[in-house]
Amino acid sequence: MPIPATPAPGQFEGGCAFADGAYVPLSEAKISLFDWGFTRSDVTYDVVSTWQGAFFRLDDHLDRFFVSLEKMRLTLPYSRAELRDILHGCVRAGGLQDAYVAMICTRGVPPKGARDPRMAQNRFYAYAVPYVWIASRDKQLQGIDLHVSQRIRIAPESVDPTVKNYHWMDLVQSLLDAYDQGRDTSCVVDAQGNIMEGPGFNVFMVKNGVVHTANRGVLEGISRRTVIELCERLGIPLEIAPIPLAEFRQADEVFLSSTGGGVLPIAKLDGQPLAHFPGPITGRLSDAYWSLHDEAAYRDPVNYSG
Amino acid sequence: MPIPATPAPGQFEGGCAFADGAYVPLSEAKISLFDWGFTRSDVTYDVVSTWQGAFFRLDDHLDRFFVSLEKMRLTLPYSRAELRDILHGCVRAGGLQDAYVAMICTRGVPPKGARDPRMAQNRFYAYAVPYVWIASRDKQLQGIDLHVSQRIRIAPESVDPTVKNYHWMDLVQSLLDAYDQGRDTSCVVDAQGNIMEGPGFNVFMVKNGVVHTANRGVLEGISRRTVIELCERLGIPLEIAPIPLAEFRQADEVFLSSTGGGVLPIAKLDGQPLAHFPGPITGRLSDAYWSLHDEAAYRDPVNYSG
Ligand SMILES: Cc1ncc(COP(=O)(O)O)c(C=O)c1O
Ligand SMILES: Cc1ncc(COP(=O)(O)O)c(C=O)c1O
Repeated sequence: MPIPATPAPGQFEGGCAFADGAYVPLSEAKISLFDWGFTRSDVTYDVVSTWQGAFFRLDDHLDRFFVSLEKMRLTLPYSRAELRDILHGCVRAGGLQDAYVAMICTRGVPPKGARDPRMAQNRFYAYAVPYVWIASRDKQLQGIDLHVSQRIRIAPESVDPTVKNYHWMDLVQSLLDAYDQGRDTSCVVDAQGNIMEGPGFNVFMVKNGVVHTANRGVLEGISRRTVIELCERLGIPLEIAPIPLAEFRQADEVFLSSTGGGVLPIAKLDGQPLAHFPGPITGRLSDAYWSLHDEAAYRDPVNYSG
Repeated sequence: MPIPATPAPGQFEGGCAFADGAYVPLSEAKISLFDWGFTRSDVTYDVVSTWQGAFFRLDDHLDRFFVSLEKMRLTLPYSRAELRDILHGCVRAGGLQDAYVAMICTRGVPPKGARDPRMAQNRFYAYAVPYVWIASRDKQLQGIDLHVSQRIRIAPESVDPTVKNYHWMDLVQSLLDAYDQGRDTSCVVDAQGNIMEGPGFNVFMVKNGVVHTANRGVLEGISRRTVIELCERLGIPLEIAPIPLAEFRQADEVFLSSTGGGVLPIAKLDGQPLAHFPGPITGRLSDAYWSLHDEAAYRDPVNYSG
């Protein structure tokens, strides 16, 4: 599929989308009500960030996106090089330095009356908006209060969580509980009561100097991978294994990882202050996370000239 | 919210949608890429049919829709009377006699950067298109071959299946398996291996004169309810309880129930012919299903004059 002329820098100041083959302002970014991406949530996506004018780990996000596409049997109407160009184009047209950049592939609109997923032409959407924080800077300083929900994450036997997806009803219900109780965000468990993930992030705890995170049932977050790699670099012991809820409540430190904020320290679990906030290991990892943004191997400077 | 002037009969011949407060042709029926109804599948919907110019069990569908809305904490921007008017308007403008009529309520587009579901203004969409069959007339006569997938339906502990929803990745994967193997459609099981439901229908089996269907983990289909009520009327024994996969494979008759086709007899399970096709009890229930469409209590004639 040919891609349109690159938009002028700042042409859609504040945010730009790419929909049905054209760059458009955010207000015109729409999808058909009949796209199975909506009516069956038959869609996969990825989100990468730009920070101070450069993409962070863009190739890792693209790799994950292409693996998800393959698992879903979705075909992008663009090559990897064209996809890159479109993402650069959205950030450039949005005139953004720190951006939240999404790429989405839907099953598409079926021929009339068809029910066979193989009969739809897959569609591609993308957009760049100002960087999104899982929690505002203020809230981060004040201390995020995490609601540990007993709601059960959709099992990996039903929906492969390593395919980044929009099946969020469980997460949304836990979020509603959290806000009702005056908490700031939430995480959910599996059927055995092990800590899984939250709406937009992976979850870590630190106990007796060891960093812990779930081994299954969750998205393999790129930020989670960054934390794992940083533990290795910094010589911090790490265990990737189920975290029972009871152990989680006794953690020394808890933090979240997300493209929407990096390494975010948690101050309280359901209103109960944790032993350490901000925790020393969380602090080291957070500093290292942001330092990594300056290393050439992780940076893809945005093409602002077009 | 005020509703627009009623569209002229047949104004959008062949199908009409209602989106963002206006009647539009199907090609213009779109939803924002940023609506949480898409990016979190935070949405509920219902589908009712019209048959020979009358809605079938409209009030039952509206009741189910309003219960789903409440469970999801979604608020329709229209009253029940206005909702009815909009559905009639879509069928009238589409010039349709036999129609598939959908009503959809999404969480809506969040304010910039917000993550709290309570902060979005919920949105309403509807459309009427020609009646959709789960399987074509030809395929029905020829005999539908059902793939009994071992894929596991999203558990009711994670997503309430009585809230009609678009969390279909499990169903879509089973459909892809089915088509790959030359089958016509599919159904999935729960973690204990009991038969659940399929992409758009409930599943029944008949064994030794008794009709069986699942008691939990599935949408409480209005067609399923019709079948249950007809069993009572016709004096056919019924058991609403888990159906183990092994028993299902030994069924005398199998049929599906759906607004998209009523009572649909199954000829084969994974290529293996069933003992009876078309089965005598399935036949009685299917006849009774269509006869019910003539009873005044179940009919709401479409307002075609506007
Ligand atoms: C469910 C879920 N888990 C984890 C994450 C974190 O993934 P990443 O670090 O790649 O942003 C996300 C990100 O959106 C998510 O949606
Ligand atoms: C998952 C699922 N189960 C069952 C049904 C059947 O419900 P109804 O008889 O109300 O059409 C549907 C209808 O779309 C469905 O999507």
